[in-house]
Amino acid sequence: MPSSRTDRANAVRALAMDAVEKAKSGHPGAPMGLADLAEVLWREVLRHNPSNPHWWNRDRLVMSNGHGSMLLYAVLHLTGYDVSLDDLRAFRQLHSKTAGHPEYGICPGIETTTGPLGQGLANGVGMALAESLLAREFNRDGLPVVDHRTWVLAGDGCMMEGVTHEAASLAGTLGLGKLACLYDDNGISIDGETRHWHTEDVAARFEAYGWHVVRDVDGHDPDSVREALAAAVEEDGRPTLICCRTVIGFGAPAKQGTAAAHGAALGAGEVAATRRRLNWGFPPFEIPREVYRDWDMRPEGAVLEGEWADLLERYREAFPELAEEFERRMGGTLPAGWRQRLLAYAAQAQSAGTPIETRKASQACLDVLGPSIPELLGGSADLTGSNGTQWSGAGWLHEGGRYLNFGVREFGMTAIANGIALHGGLIPYSGTFLVFMEYARNAVRLAALMGIRNVLVYTHDSVGLGEDGPTHQPVEQLTNLRTTPNLSLWRPCDAVETAYAWAAALARTNGPTALALTR
Amino acid sequence: MPSSRTDRANAVRALAMDAVEKAKSGHPGAPMGLADLAEVLWREVLRHNPSNPHWWNRDRLVMSNGHGSMLLYAVLHLTGYDVSLDDLRAFRQLHSKTAGHPEYGICPGIETTTGPLGQGLANGVGMALAESLLAREFNRDGLPVVDHRTWVLAGDGCMMEGVTHEAASLAGTLGLGKLACLYDDNGISIDGETRHWHTEDVAARFEAYGWHVVRDVDGHDPDSVREALAAAVEEDGRPTLICCRTVIGFGAPAKQGTAAAHGAALGAGEVAATRRRLNWGFPPFEIPREVYRDWDMRPEGAVLEGEWADLLERYREAFPELAEEFERRMGGTLPAGWRQRLLAYAAQAQSAGTPIETRKASQACLDVLGPSIPELLGGSADLTGSNGTQWSGAGWLHEGGRYLNFGVREFGMTAIANGIALHGGLIPYSGTFLVFMEYARNAVRLAALMGIRNVLVYTHDSVGLGEDGPTHQPVEQLTNLRTTPNLSLWRPCDAVETAYAWAAALARTNGPTALALTR
Repeated sequence: MPSSRTDRANAVRALAMDAVEKAKSGHPGAPMGLADLAEVLWREVLRHNPSNPHWWNRDRLVMSNGHGSMLLYAVLHLTGYDVSLDDLRAFRQLHSKTAGHPEYGICPGIETTTGPLGQGLANGVGMALAESLLAREFNRDGLPVVDHRTWVLAGDGCMMEGVTHEAASLAGTLGLGKLACLYDDNGISIDGETRHWHTEDVAARFEAYGWHVVRDVDGHDPDSVREALAAAVEEDGRPTLICCRTVIGFGAPAKQGTAAAHGAALGAGEVAATRRRLNWGFPPFEIPREVYRDWDMRPEGAVLEGEWADLLERYREAFPELAEEFERRMGGTLPAGWRQRLLAYAAQAQSAGTPIETRKASQACLDVLGPSIPELLGGSADLTGSNGTQWSGAGWLHEGGRYLNFGVREFGMTAIANGIALHGGLIPYSGTFLVFMEYARNAVRLAALMGIRNVLVYTHDSVGLGEDGPTHQPVEQLTNLRTTPNLSLWRPCDAVETAYAWAAALARTNGPTALALTR
Repeated sequence: MPSSRTDRANAVRALAMDAVEKAKSGHPGAPMGLADLAEVLWREVLRHNPSNPHWWNRDRLVMSNGHGSMLLYAVLHLTGYDVSLDDLRAFRQLHSKTAGHPEYGICPGIETTTGPLGQGLANGVGMALAESLLAREFNRDGLPVVDHRTWVLAGDGCMMEGVTHEAASLAGTLGLGKLACLYDDNGISIDGETRHWHTEDVAARFEAYGWHVVRDVDGHDPDSVREALAAAVEEDGRPTLICCRTVIGFGAPAKQGTAAAHGAALGAGEVAATRRRLNWGFPPFEIPREVYRDWDMRPEGAVLEGEWADLLERYREAFPELAEEFERRMGGTLPAGWRQRLLAYAAQAQSAGTPIETRKASQACLDVLGPSIPELLGGSADLTGSNGTQWSGAGWLHEGGRYLNFGVREFGMTAIANGIALHGGLIPYSGTFLVFMEYARNAVRLAALMGIRNVLVYTHDSVGLGEDGPTHQPVEQLTNLRTTPNLSLWRPCDAVETAYAWAAALARTNGPTALALTR
């Protein structure tokens, strides 16, 4: 007998509330509210292979409202990822896969570290952008080797954070049609009912960004959800926002629809009452066999990955050189020769002996690196000329090149660059003035925490910036960056050191590098 | 013979381009584009008194696109503030009043330090909020002693920054009807034409926030500007966005309408050509007498302030005790008794000797301080219960109290709090987790730079935060804060130190204080 949708969704609810209950801390509300939606998204729409979380052409799924992590862990467990019941029982314990907030590299199927709100959407923009650029570069008629979507779950808190404005506005301009964000509009945040502090019309706001918006989706009605997801898949030219009304803590009789369901264990009594209300008769961490069977996405995932492997094989036959380059890019190894050419520039600069501002030296390095490393994707938060981030042959992205004008959006830029790095196939670097690193500070920290290659070009670390005044003069920023574990920081003194800094930054695969450069 | 509008606007353009030319650096484009608009705003609408920049009931004017500082300096000079031609000649020089970006406390008439984009709008939200709360508290029938507007100039860069999203969204919810933002929509940012990276419909976005939006204003047509400003003044229940199309660098034949006019001196040839184009025959830094006469706002300012002084006198007679309190609040002296009561709590905590989390001690301090200091205005970025920022008797702002739910908007919150502090009459404090200080980092720096009293409550500086994971665990944040000049940082070890930290924070009038508190 097949399981019912309700049972499959309730399995997620039960695992979420039981894991939070066992940990005595955590956030049951979002997973319980999103369970019905997740049941449709993961089983019917998301293209993934639980047996191989690294399958390159998988859809990317980001939970920007990362405190709802138990939704991910429950679904990863049920669909067949290497996340066991014991892992769920270890929710929020030291060294467990199932950390309080989703952590990249710790748990299979987690595409990015979230928790600090809003950045997940920006990461998703970066992933979708990477996909679109790689598709443009590698796909050939009938051979779409790069062809996947990016799905983002976001809550009310994400929508309030400024970084979602920056990222969503740019995503609209870029027309990222394979990006979709499911907005969990449950009307509750930690302080209570959001109608007292968040009355904006989110749908209208995203329409103003140029997004395709699907309004008034009942997040507890599978048909309504399915229809909205299909509309997102059909839309090619614009990112899609799906506005889902849900009830936080759905199923908890006394706490659902209130802030009490958000961020604390429901309590034994309420958990028992929820079981009765949901008609879920199973003990904690026990899931009926037919529910497991119907949630298992491994068979379908193997088919999807197999089809793609066949496609790739045909691609190899038709375009052997392109396929070789594509596989190199997927593998993340750098092409040959770039380092020699860069160090040749360093040697030349050393023998020339002419003092040069290090931001100019950095631009000279990029003139060498840009043509040598096709996966380099650069940009600046509207300071291109000042940052020296555009190498000579790098055309604008909007004209088909690979230089991106991020606009005056430092935080969005850095979080988008994190998403590009996480996606793979491209290596991001981006620039702003050192002092405005502060706007992006937490995205820098997350890059360090995730251990991803993201090169941060910070120019105007200089007393020569005097005339712009103290708002533009870096004083404490270098120290600030130096305190962050796993962030590599270089402050080269001349062109030679600048070249070696760039060499180290690109060779470093387990963390971001910041370059502090003089005016 | 009276001067013409064109001459008055051209005087601003000439001073801006000449000062930038003399400094060999700076931003002529925005002042030249905004000159026509400024001529109407400062002469016909803004209620201010150049002879007394500290007149308490003046309209507040914030230039969020602070790089256009020469607009302010030129207008302050022309309207009669203590900004001389020599001051303009010293633009961007060390120790001059006319710093590269507007600096609070350095130049009369500058209401806040701007330059880091977007924050000026958030400051303006804080000022308008302070005005509305003080009006609610002090105004009586026919005696509106608190009655002024807040005007913000903002550019394309401000609109791209996330902090304007956070602040504008909250301003819409709060219905700040006396706030108006003039959006300088010139379609140009440093990298070039913004249509390649900023295509959002800003007007529709602000309508989504609940703002009153005046579209399609020709920023070079005084009638169009005047009508829009009148519409803003008429609107009581919602903040107003005025979308002004302008030409950056208006009048510079070769450079207007391009990024070349944005951030560098025009060059001698282009300056000369601009003089011819504008039919402005005067040498640098020379303004015709009739232009000075017609720009001089001192006579009208004296009348405005005099009327208000009369009103205040009638208020004193009708409500002597309320007037006394109002004058204390305007003067910024704290009421008697609060310190004794706070230290009594400290003594009591010491004798009790019970260990207590310092965030709980902070809440206990606020239970003493809240009733003792009526100007305390507290809030949290949606972590009220965790931060312990709401004292027992503090009602929600939306229910008539003085506790503000900022929503999940750390950067907006801190920049809004800066605006509240700058306005005067209220003392802001606001809370979030220490690690999320990073979202607001640059607003913290600006508070320190401006030397304003803004108390920052950062809780969960604790290894006890382990189960939330590294995204929530502060590691480098304390050091980060300690590096900022003029930021006072306390990390109290117990309830006694917490009380003394609060005492110091409130007594400190020349800079912000951060309290790092344990979970």
